[in-house]
Amino acid sequence: MRCKSLWTGLVALLAFAGIGAQEASRPASFNLMPVPKSLTAQAGRLPVQASFAAAVTGFSDARLLAGLDRTLRRLERRTGLEFPRKAADATKAANPAKAADTAKAALIIEVAAAGQPVPSVDENESYQLTIDATRATLKAPTVVGALRGFETLLQLLDGDRDGYYLPAVTIDDAPRFPWRGLLVDVGRHFIPVDAIKRNLDGMAAVKLNVLHLHLTEDQGFRIESRKFPKLHQQGSDGLYFTQDQIRDIVAYAAQRGIRVIPEFDMPGHVQAWLVGHPELGSAPGPYAIARAWGVMDPAFDPTREELYKFLDVFFGEMAPLFPDAYLHIGGDENNGKHWNANAGIKAFMAKNKLADAHALQAYFNQRLSKILKKYGKKMVGWDEILHPDLPKDIVVQSWRGQESLAEGARKGYAGILSSGYYIDLMEPASRHYAVDPLPASLGLTAEESARVLGGEATMWAEWVTPETIDSRVWPRTAAIAERFWSPASVRDVLDMYRRLVPVSLQLEDLGLQHNSQLPVMLRRLAGAYEIGPLATMVSLAEPVKGYRRGREKPGGQLTPLTSFVDVARADSMAALKFRIAVEEMLADAPRFRDRREELAITLTTWRDIRPAVDRLIDRAPALRETAPLAVDVSALGSLGLEALSFLATGTAPPADWRDASLARVDAAAKPRAAVELAVTPTMRKLVVAAAELPQLATMTPAAWRAQVDKLAAPPAPVKPR
Amino acid sequence: MRCKSLWTGLVALLAFAGIGAQEASRPASFNLMPVPKSLTAQAGRLPVQASFAAAVTGFSDARLLAGLDRTLRRLERRTGLEFPRKAADATKAANPAKAADTAKAALIIEVAAAGQPVPSVDENESYQLTIDATRATLKAPTVVGALRGFETLLQLLDGDRDGYYLPAVTIDDAPRFPWRGLLVDVGRHFIPVDAIKRNLDGMAAVKLNVLHLHLTEDQGFRIESRKFPKLHQQGSDGLYFTQDQIRDIVAYAAQRGIRVIPEFDMPGHVQAWLVGHPELGSAPGPYAIARAWGVMDPAFDPTREELYKFLDVFFGEMAPLFPDAYLHIGGDENNGKHWNANAGIKAFMAKNKLADAHALQAYFNQRLSKILKKYGKKMVGWDEILHPDLPKDIVVQSWRGQESLAEGARKGYAGILSSGYYIDLMEPASRHYAVDPLPASLGLTAEESARVLGGEATMWAEWVTPETIDSRVWPRTAAIAERFWSPASVRDVLDMYRRLVPVSLQLEDLGLQHNSQLPVMLRRLAGAYEIGPLATMVSLAEPVKGYRRGREKPGGQLTPLTSFVDVARADSMAALKFRIAVEEMLADAPRFRDRREELAITLTTWRDIRPAVDRLIDRAPALRETAPLAVDVSALGSLGLEALSFLATGTAPPADWRDASLARVDAAAKPRAAVELAVTPTMRKLVVAAAELPQLATMTPAAWRAQVDKLAAPPAPVKPR
Repeated sequence: MRCKSLWTGLVALLAFAGIGAQEASRPASFNLMPVPKSLTAQAGRLPVQASFAAAVTGFSDARLLAGLDRTLRRLERRTGLEFPRKAADATKAANPAKAADTAKAALIIEVAAAGQPVPSVDENESYQLTIDATRATLKAPTVVGALRGFETLLQLLDGDRDGYYLPAVTIDDAPRFPWRGLLVDVGRHFIPVDAIKRNLDGMAAVKLNVLHLHLTEDQGFRIESRKFPKLHQQGSDGLYFTQDQIRDIVAYAAQRGIRVIPEFDMPGHVQAWLVGHPELGSAPGPYAIARAWGVMDPAFDPTREELYKFLDVFFGEMAPLFPDAYLHIGGDENNGKHWNANAGIKAFMAKNKLADAHALQAYFNQRLSKILKKYGKKMVGWDEILHPDLPKDIVVQSWRGQESLAEGARKGYAGILSSGYYIDLMEPASRHYAVDPLPASLGLTAEESARVLGGEATMWAEWVTPETIDSRVWPRTAAIAERFWSPASVRDVLDMYRRLVPVSLQLEDLGLQHNSQLPVMLRRLAGAYEIGPLATMVSLAEPVKGYRRGREKPGGQLTPLTSFVDVARADSMAALKFRIAVEEMLADAPRFRDRREELAITLTTWRDIRPAVDRLIDRAPALRETAPLAVDVSALGSLGLEALSFLATGTAPPADWRDASLARVDAAAKPRAAVELAVTPTMRKLVVAAAELPQLATMTPAAWRAQVDKLAAPPAPVKPR
Repeated sequence: MRCKSLWTGLVALLAFAGIGAQEASRPASFNLMPVPKSLTAQAGRLPVQASFAAAVTGFSDARLLAGLDRTLRRLERRTGLEFPRKAADATKAANPAKAADTAKAALIIEVAAAGQPVPSVDENESYQLTIDATRATLKAPTVVGALRGFETLLQLLDGDRDGYYLPAVTIDDAPRFPWRGLLVDVGRHFIPVDAIKRNLDGMAAVKLNVLHLHLTEDQGFRIESRKFPKLHQQGSDGLYFTQDQIRDIVAYAAQRGIRVIPEFDMPGHVQAWLVGHPELGSAPGPYAIARAWGVMDPAFDPTREELYKFLDVFFGEMAPLFPDAYLHIGGDENNGKHWNANAGIKAFMAKNKLADAHALQAYFNQRLSKILKKYGKKMVGWDEILHPDLPKDIVVQSWRGQESLAEGARKGYAGILSSGYYIDLMEPASRHYAVDPLPASLGLTAEESARVLGGEATMWAEWVTPETIDSRVWPRTAAIAERFWSPASVRDVLDMYRRLVPVSLQLEDLGLQHNSQLPVMLRRLAGAYEIGPLATMVSLAEPVKGYRRGREKPGGQLTPLTSFVDVARADSMAALKFRIAVEEMLADAPRFRDRREELAITLTTWRDIRPAVDRLIDRAPALRETAPLAVDVSALGSLGLEALSFLATGTAPPADWRDASLARVDAAAKPRAAVELAVTPTMRKLVVAAAELPQLATMTPAAWRAQVDKLAAPPAPVKPR
């Protein structure tokens, strides 16, 4: 069963990525991501033609009409059709729409009420979408529900020889979790407004509803403070959001039903604050903006009353900029070194019976929570803030994992999960997709379970710039968004990948540059238009995973991130295609004819890649580090062609071929230029299959394939990760 | 000679577009665009390594340091190197730099003074750049001169097996004309701040110094007026620049030594003003924002004193937003219909002895010029404003041509040329490049010549959106920028094209999307990743030229501009490559072996393109209009292969083959989907060559080629254009 699903899913994926999707049978989930709570396909379709008009028949406000307008314009851009505007304009004048407009409309929007006055964790985001041959009807209790429904409608658009259409469906949808976020670390590398906005559009498209702005870090203080202007003036290199820009971002997000939660990380991670305000620190200073990565020693001095006076004024200034009920105070990774080195702080701890740094931080957090309460804010913080003395209305964001979250929930604390959703680690979408914020195995009661509010993907920005952030966030975050929205039972990885392909295209249509910036960066690297061999290499490569990047290719905040690894992306599609082709050929034992010709063409391209890459390197010294990679790709191509030849002719390879070949594959699996070739597991399989060929005479093809699978398992990963 | 230059230039171009430029001999102008006034290549090179540091030894200010910082960061991005920051930071603290910093620096900047307090037509933009094996020294009388020099430095960066370097040169540079502009029509389609900013970066890269914002049109009023908010509220669909955004744009431009000149087009082209203020019009109204293109009837009523009171307040509000000495009042295309239909206006004209609409407009302009003078602004307007009663300090912008400009110059008026630089007409760069603002043939005296200040490329925006503007402006405008900056003697079209290729890449590196948006738009059209056949088709196609677009594919302001023609670009590089290959093969008469194999591969791709295009069309109804284009491409491929076969075998084609084939080529030259196949002239040549093959036996190859050239001339263009 599993194997069957594998093939169906992968072939459909390939068909879509190619141009044959037309022939593939329509899957139950269409191309929707996240998958709705309930979806029933119906017979028939609603044509999308130049006459396509919409009418708002229930509650209406500016946000709903703006959302409708964006929806219609996106439909127009994709179809090239110009829809009538009068009906849409009429909704502005008349509410509800005139009966005549409603009768003509192909899309009826019926909303009950505005919903929460500002985007809120308590918002009702449900909607019902019914499409038949006559019209599409979108009903929702709130405007935000309708906005979610618009995105579903847009994902349903399809076309064939008879024109564009929406398939007839009945959808009843609502999110599994109310808190579905993306953290963007603008501290380590600043991400400007336009990049934030296009990512907000992407978030809305996959029904995420929280933008968590990690605004302050050792490497940068990224928001204008009029009360303490030295904070941004001396702590940001001039790279910060003005208050007007913050208001703009918050309004842009609210228009899309997205909350914006600011994080001011403290008492650690505050080095950039201390450049302008060394008096807040636990060491005498002076301080400079941190340029390296890692956990830094500087921390606020929580024993000084001046600190609380400062923070009172500061949060008094910041709180009104962010209308959300929550405010994040970080609280992570305070190493306590500067506290322990400060005699005054040690004396304070002794006097107040604060046993250790954790206790002192809890004291600080209690003081902080009172300030936040004064400004009407509930506190959010990382696992470290959990302490019995804190009020129960805080939210714990867990980088430690579900168990830490569950422990909080049992104690009465609400929480959100980020462990498992660290997209900066360049893991494949499938790995994040497998992580559930609330697995049944935790054994929480219903009441405790309700305290698990959802999760957030975290875009930590050591190795991210405005140019590359889109390709680091997307499309993988769409899979995480599905985990937060869709029922827990939606877990088919291959169907997720199948849908991720069209969703990625739709995200691109919103202005996200996760696809388009790749050739731009390669052309810059090469200083030339013809980047074919580089594009081939980068398609097979993935950035090293986990925290290896800093070891493979050290750098800090000021290092340009325009190298080969910065072009490479997680989740190599080319490697997946290669895997499918090899699996299909091996499944065709003992003939090995299926897809063999195509594989031979691919492998020949790899084998012959070196001269073209070398010519590029000759003009572009920045590419020099990829020379060993080209050697590896070429070697894999040669090996693969040898394996193909053995398989095609039924010839057993020489005795030492297998071990020598596997050694070469394993050597090619090592990082070069901070990337890894994603095709090595499949190459191992191809080599083992060729080596095991004599066994095939004594086994069934199925048993032989199982044997190959077993023997081709890659070696244990090199430690440390 | 001409022919020799053709081959050298084209082969070099091809080599660069490919990956063999390394082998091409270094041309005299390097890859610089615009070509400097004086350049002498020297022996040697300055390595660009991680130790590359800069020092400012003369005058220094924030603008110079910001420009230097941008320059160093761009060098870092392209080389992947991280330069030391201390030396650069030191320039902020110490002015002049410490001797130690200067000794270590690879780049010395020596500026004499700040220059004009605001960017001005009187700015001295000259600079001297000397690079030897030890260092690069940039000297300039003003900061703006240094900014121009930085761009030259960036264009000189090169690399080889020994690393990145700047070639040793001595450059003495200054512009030929002081007014080198790009008009962006934000009225017909609004172009937001981010697109304006990246185009300002592009302008700075090719040393343009005037951004002319065409802010008001019948289709949109695009700037916030606090005095008369109904102007932008009712005249813009919410798409306008806030005053803060205008200040931001003006400051961003000034940082780059670029003036911003606002145009408020009047007394015609004012329909969008009249939506909120119908009382200013010559007809009773009410008015709506125009959605169609063309010359509209609405005009201000110049007989009413209230109009001048209104304009006095309005310009009093606008003038301080734009620090430039000039302000553009349009004045074009007022058809006079509403004036003639208004009895009051007729009576006013009779009473004031104003013979016709032109006289009445001159009266209006005189009144206007007094208002502008009051706010310290000199008037700029289109040809129509020329009238003996106007003061001599106005500047006439000519859409009519050099003669109109010369006439003004003889009468004492300064002028700038835009005729010949209408980049919205989708003509090739070569055509604009051939137009000189001040050809010797005008016979102007030195004094009169000095009144020709320069020119402006005009990006009229009937068919332009934020998504496509970059590909409409660039890279062609770089060639126009060279016409405005470089000596008149720099006229080698093929060398221009050779340099346009790397310059286009550098423009892309600034964030311009003229290359990268093409596949994005094709993927959206196809709804798929695999767009190979579409990319082939679009590479051979050019949008119809001149004013044909509106006839071939009618549409207005609200029509989505996401169709095939919106993806296609002027100046098909693929057509140029095809032409080179065919010319080289034909030059190899009577063997016809050179490049024949490569041509056969290309032509086979064309011939076989239909099934893949048809499959895409089946899923994407918006592509249906390209089906006839695929038929034509396929037919051209077949024809070309037939011609190749005749040439290869020395066989004479059948008697009727030539005429039938040329008829087919001419049929394929007709617009489909509002694009034209740019390869048809070369296809004609190929057909004629095959048909003339028997003649080759009786002629020298050279005479035969001349005969082919003559017979292959395309038919006269179909009228009307």
